[in-house]
Amino acid sequence: MPSEEAMKAAMQAYIDRYNAEDAEGLIDLYADDAVVEDPVGGATYEGKEAIAEFYRYAIQTGAKLKLQAPIRASHGNAAAMAFTVELTHEGQPMQIHVIDVMTFNAAGKFSSMRAYWGKTDMKVR
Amino acid sequence: MPSEEAMKAAMQAYIDRYNAEDAEGLIDLYADDAVVEDPVGGATYEGKEAIAEFYRYAIQTGAKLKLQAPIRASHGNAAAMAFTVELTHEGQPMQIHVIDVMTFNAAGKFSSMRAYWGKTDMKVR
Repeated sequence: MPSEEAMKAAMQAYIDRYNAEDAEGLIDLYADDAVVEDPVGGATYEGKEAIAEFYRYAIQTGAKLKLQAPIRASHGNAAAMAFTVELTHEGQPMQIHVIDVMTFNAAGKFSSMRAYWGKTDMKVR
Repeated sequence: MPSEEAMKAAMQAYIDRYNAEDAEGLIDLYADDAVVEDPVGGATYEGKEAIAEFYRYAIQTGAKLKLQAPIRASHGNAAAMAFTVELTHEGQPMQIHVIDVMTFNAAGKFSSMRAYWGKTDMKVR
């Protein structure tokens, strides 16, 4: 199981690579057989190719991520973080309030990501 | 499935009842067959009696909860929130950074709670 510090570093790298538009670097944080559910109760992406396509699209929209509070670890193979997505939707500056929960495999790669946000979490900036 | 608004109201009631030392009101937010994992990877409490005992103890310690960012809903039967626990541990004022994820049953009660926090999320205040 990765250490709390290693899990937090991977979460921070996710934010940093997303904002640097480093899609390939971000995708490299995931295990080959990872599953992404974004949003929870909505779309699911299974396996690295589907996940890669999702992030290549998301990053090229110009959206940026801003942490709202320190990243949390856990006593298990999971970590969580609260952030905003800053984006422009149909010409309108928007913000989405999101909490991501990642689980990790033994190699320290994300084995899953679940993004908690709903329609009521989208705001005009 | 409860609405996003209903899920957020239940999460806010959890914070408010905890801080009002209303253990019985807080416990009433849970379904009879709920499961609490606090922290994730640590202790698990199954069923309302075990959950009630956990909160009666936690609340009488005098710990208080403070939201760090707006409560998130999702597109499913789940919601999440980032907060701090303000407490005194062996005479020392401490703060724990936590993210709670709740799932809901059809009646709008919590069917599960998972609390993400690790040893590295405990700080001296």
